Amino acid sequence: MRASPLAAADRRENDAEHSWHLALMVMLLAEYADEPIDVGRAMRMVVIHDLVEIYAGDSPVFDPAAVVGQQEREEAAADRLFTLLPAGQAAEIRALWDEFEAGRTPEARFCKAMDRLQPMLLNWLNQGGTWQMPGATESTVRAREAGVVAASTTLGEVTNALVEHGLRNGWIRPDPAEETG
Amino acid sequence: MRASPLAAADRRENDAEHSWHLALMVMLLAEYADEPIDVGRAMRMVVIHDLVEIYAGDSPVFDPAAVVGQQEREEAAADRLFTLLPAGQAAEIRALWDEFEAGRTPEARFCKAMDRLQPMLLNWLNQGGTWQMPGATESTVRAREAGVVAASTTLGEVTNALVEHGLRNGWIRPDPAEETG
Repeated sequence: MRASPLAAADRRENDAEHSWHLALMVMLLAEYADEPIDVGRAMRMVVIHDLVEIYAGDSPVFDPAAVVGQQEREEAAADRLFTLLPAGQAAEIRALWDEFEAGRTPEARFCKAMDRLQPMLLNWLNQGGTWQMPGATESTVRAREAGVVAASTTLGEVTNALVEHGLRNGWIRPDPAEETG
Repeated sequence: MRASPLAAADRRENDAEHSWHLALMVMLLAEYADEPIDVGRAMRMVVIHDLVEIYAGDSPVFDPAAVVGQQEREEAAADRLFTLLPAGQAAEIRALWDEFEAGRTPEARFCKAMDRLQPMLLNWLNQGGTWQMPGATESTVRAREAGVVAASTTLGEVTNALVEHGLRNGWIRPDPAEETG
């Protein structure tokens, strides 16, 4: 189970639903990628990107305690999970997951953008969602928005509009005022 | 919601989960297709194949009442749903769905095979599942198996083993004896 609430049901989303939603978004939104992407390869990437959570569990981004040790837990899960496959396939899927995690190819950047945008859509449709978690304020939400902007100017503008609307409606809290000396 | 029970939770599967599972199966099992397939295209096909159920609902294959008018309901749903997209994209996704439904290309045959095999796996893991519905007996289950055999000799053999095991354990009922004159 993930932290995000679904748009059409009164419960949280699970990784299968989330991954399918990303695959559909990759198909339909690929034309907005700033760099050309191989859509089939990007779809493979989003279909497998959260499999490690079978063992590592979900690490909600706005929960500072949950993200401690996340990378180590997920690497250990990948070692355990992907090696269940025949060696050639294990290496192929592991490379695809490593590529997603590193985020340095056009496909990985676009998949990460979808992985940032989709929870924003769910939060916006739910008038809050995980934006209501203690660790979420404008600056941490903006940091997620940056992952969309990095892959797509157009979808970055859409994301900015969602965030602006969320701020105006109080669905996203402003940052705490800095203490002055 | 679909009729199939999940393997890892005590509830029925939904279409998002089912479609993600098929996408993963296409990726991992494509090498067993009897004809070469374009994996990226097949993944697009399974990701969108059940979207029409948003409006048409699920039509469990072993429920004779549910499948009456299924094709007309799903065609009407496709007309309504895919035209929400910009025209070019609407035509593209509609063509992909029509191709899946017709089942006459290597990709469509393989995707249909995954759509037959996946519920068999869930039924087998649940020691019955939808095989326990009134309309399911050996011959109707074998008719589903034929859809796997049509695309993959190897996966057809696996499916046959699941069915044989299900019959031996009483998870699939034999056909009713024919009345004699």
